[in-house]
Amino acid sequence: MPEGMLIVLSGPSGAGKGTLCSQLLKRRPELVLSVSVTTRPPRPGEIDGVSYYFTDEARFKKMIDAGEFLEWAKVYNNYYGTPKKFVEEQLKQGKDVILEIDIQGARQVKKNCPNAVFIFILPPDIEELKKRIIKRGSENKESFDLRVKSAEEELKAMYDYDYAVVNDVVEEAVKKLESIILAERCRVKRNKELLQLVRKEGCQS
Amino acid sequence: MPEGMLIVLSGPSGAGKGTLCSQLLKRRPELVLSVSVTTRPPRPGEIDGVSYYFTDEARFKKMIDAGEFLEWAKVYNNYYGTPKKFVEEQLKQGKDVILEIDIQGARQVKKNCPNAVFIFILPPDIEELKKRIIKRGSENKESFDLRVKSAEEELKAMYDYDYAVVNDVVEEAVKKLESIILAERCRVKRNKELLQLVRKEGCQS
Repeated sequence: MPEGMLIVLSGPSGAGKGTLCSQLLKRRPELVLSVSVTTRPPRPGEIDGVSYYFTDEARFKKMIDAGEFLEWAKVYNNYYGTPKKFVEEQLKQGKDVILEIDIQGARQVKKNCPNAVFIFILPPDIEELKKRIIKRGSENKESFDLRVKSAEEELKAMYDYDYAVVNDVVEEAVKKLESIILAERCRVKRNKELLQLVRKEGCQS
Repeated sequence: MPEGMLIVLSGPSGAGKGTLCSQLLKRRPELVLSVSVTTRPPRPGEIDGVSYYFTDEARFKKMIDAGEFLEWAKVYNNYYGTPKKFVEEQLKQGKDVILEIDIQGARQVKKNCPNAVFIFILPPDIEELKKRIIKRGSENKESFDLRVKSAEEELKAMYDYDYAVVNDVVEEAVKKLESIILAERCRVKRNKELLQLVRKEGCQS
């Protein structure tokens, strides 16, 4: 069975990648979402094991030491990480796996899994980004300023990505994500079986 | 205005790329088809200026000498070529242009326009390919054998393409082509304006 594809959705905090990700999963139920582990406290409505696996710092650090993360990052004094085992198992079963992670994490995935698809989610503009962060409302002033500055820095990371999707109209942005995934499945380099078929067929007659 | 994208649909003769191309153009009216010039006689139903610009060998050779082709090839004793001027004008106007050309021609485009998108159309299998060529019915035995042998050779060219689309179910294949085009429009490297915006925004605040 051909291996699945690892799809990294990343971008500045507050670009709306969470919304896009959940809409994408609704429209493409064959995709598997990797649930991250975090030490950040749950926000209202977040469910353990669905939104994140919530844990404490001591346990998180043990997981780091045991090499259990595909990537991990410390963002705004909280830890976030992707459990390696789950992702590898799903890929082996031929499933396409979505990672919705921050930019630090995406950089590590790029190093470890250069064949993954890297998609950068952009807010319509910086002003819009600030509004979204304000709306989220769970931050104090200091934490807010830190996030905005970091977001601006992070925009520059786009250069290292394969695709950029501006999250202006959610419906449109989700359609673009879908197209990117369908297109990547057609990449010659991802179709080893097709290549073998061609080699075989090409030598007949 | 950002420049349009050059999209090359190619593949072995008889893979059904003509059908896919016309279906794609129906679903994506913003795409512009480049009409080729050929010395091959019209088949029943083909219209000059729509299917091809039909011309004679002397005139075609003059066009070669004048450097009027983006690519040209001699296939089965007939010449085929893409007029350069039309394609360049459309791209400058920001239009995405489709070239439906044979593999020799695609090789030349790859040299001259490395940023084009290269899509290889595959027949479901070699047997199917043979059937399609037989159905076409305008060939004698010699010409038929030449085409089949050449098709098998040409399958190997797939390695140099970005995408491979198997033409088993037309509807599905067209959807894949659409997705590839939508996805390529999101490529970071194709979004210079976005990159400039990021650079500018990234330095503010």
